[in-house]
Amino acid sequence: MPAGFVNYTLKLALETSNKPCDNTTMKSITKELWVNTKKMREFINITGEVEALLRESGIQEGLCLVNAMHITASVFINDDESGLHHDFDVWLEKLAPHEPVSSYRHNTGEINADAHLKRQIMGREVVVAVTGGKLHFGPWEQIFYGEFDGNRRKRLLVKIIGE
Amino acid sequence: MPAGFVNYTLKLALETSNKPCDNTTMKSITKELWVNTKKMREFINITGEVEALLRESGIQEGLCLVNAMHITASVFINDDESGLHHDFDVWLEKLAPHEPVSSYRHNTGEINADAHLKRQIMGREVVVAVTGGKLHFGPWEQIFYGEFDGNRRKRLLVKIIGE
Amino acid sequence: MPAGFVNYTLKLALETSNKPCDNTTMKSITKELWVNTKKMREFINITGEVEALLRESGIQEGLCLVNAMHITASVFINDDESGLHHDFDVWLEKLAPHEPVSSYRHNTGEINADAHLKRQIMGREVVVAVTGGKLHFGPWEQIFYGEFDGNRRKRLLVKIIGE
Repeated sequence: MPAGFVNYTLKLALETSNKPCDNTTMKSITKELWVNTKKMREFINITGEVEALLRESGIQEGLCLVNAMHITASVFINDDESGLHHDFDVWLEKLAPHEPVSSYRHNTGEINADAHLKRQIMGREVVVAVTGGKLHFGPWEQIFYGEFDGNRRKRLLVKIIGE
Repeated sequence: MPAGFVNYTLKLALETSNKPCDNTTMKSITKELWVNTKKMREFINITGEVEALLRESGIQEGLCLVNAMHITASVFINDDESGLHHDFDVWLEKLAPHEPVSSYRHNTGEINADAHLKRQIMGREVVVAVTGGKLHFGPWEQIFYGEFDGNRRKRLLVKIIGE
Repeated sequence: MPAGFVNYTLKLALETSNKPCDNTTMKSITKELWVNTKKMREFINITGEVEALLRESGIQEGLCLVNAMHITASVFINDDESGLHHDFDVWLEKLAPHEPVSSYRHNTGEINADAHLKRQIMGREVVVAVTGGKLHFGPWEQIFYGEFDGNRRKRLLVKIIGE
């Protein structure tokens, strides 16, 4: 048997098998991020952490999920402007006031019913497109962790899938 | 031609072709779930059904979408606590009251405009990370179907993609 | 070396390499859509554009993300009924009124704080299941771009991943 022949068929096999698969490697990366919340209600810009994880993953095309792991907190996308964050805080307190705590049936032992309500308005999660290895954002989009029952360490989750 | 040679090249072909693909099998599973709603407004814990479908799929890493298929209903994640569910109900009725039905232009024939509004606050869908074959949840996260125009059979959708 | 032997091993290589990969091709398609908003507040049905992009992609099973690229706008799923859209508009103006503009700290230079709030209630994005090459919808689900600070060209993003 000529050695050249073996090499030839092997080369063909590699080419045909690798061609479609190189385009199709589904990758995923998962990370829990911890935040130290210092106030009862607080908005923390986490865009940089999410972008760093995306770079680490090497994923070029896909979807990026970011969600609060607590049910009295939110992850949302809006403007990084302190005046607006003040407006959010005042507005949420008007729509779902903390006081009187006795007005909520959930408040037996805990007094955070309003935080569960505020989180529903602001949302639990965002899903962001990943295009060309970057978060595919409009001009002012930034990702925030919104805390409504803080003063302690809290967790959020980032999961990116794609290729 | 020696038979041994054929086997040898074939083995190479199989190894090279299967290696990258085993890591990349994108799977998906889709299921419509029916719920019998017995009240106009109701919250039903569907976490167990979603977990069962995930186990059936065998998907280890990916994303799980759960959404209402009706526009007067929600799927959301929050606490499984009856006091809180009562608070949600009272609060949603305050923000988007059912009565007076004549105050809504949508209510010609139907009288469910408030249900369309309530659903926007609570959200249509959730996307949950799948990690190590499980829903990647924080300590208290549970998935609920929220009905605002019930007393009948309704559908929701679970779709999981991953590998 | 007999030519027939070469063809035989090559055929085996192609079959074994293509079989698993045909099932696993992860595809994605990305498109920014522009809309000309003619009013400050407006709801525009974009379902047809999303369906056209899905057909173009050839994706059969996957997830479709549609999101506003502006932080004073929403993408949401609800009914295509003009009475309901009027009700949404009146309701959002009640929950997050435009006037008095001086009541918001964000309104220094801009006067669109209310639009940032309204968008949080209606949501930034939707994720829709793709099944059998179609948007997997319930009977009345339609996708809308909701504008709260319009009178200009705005962008939204559609990203579909799957196989």
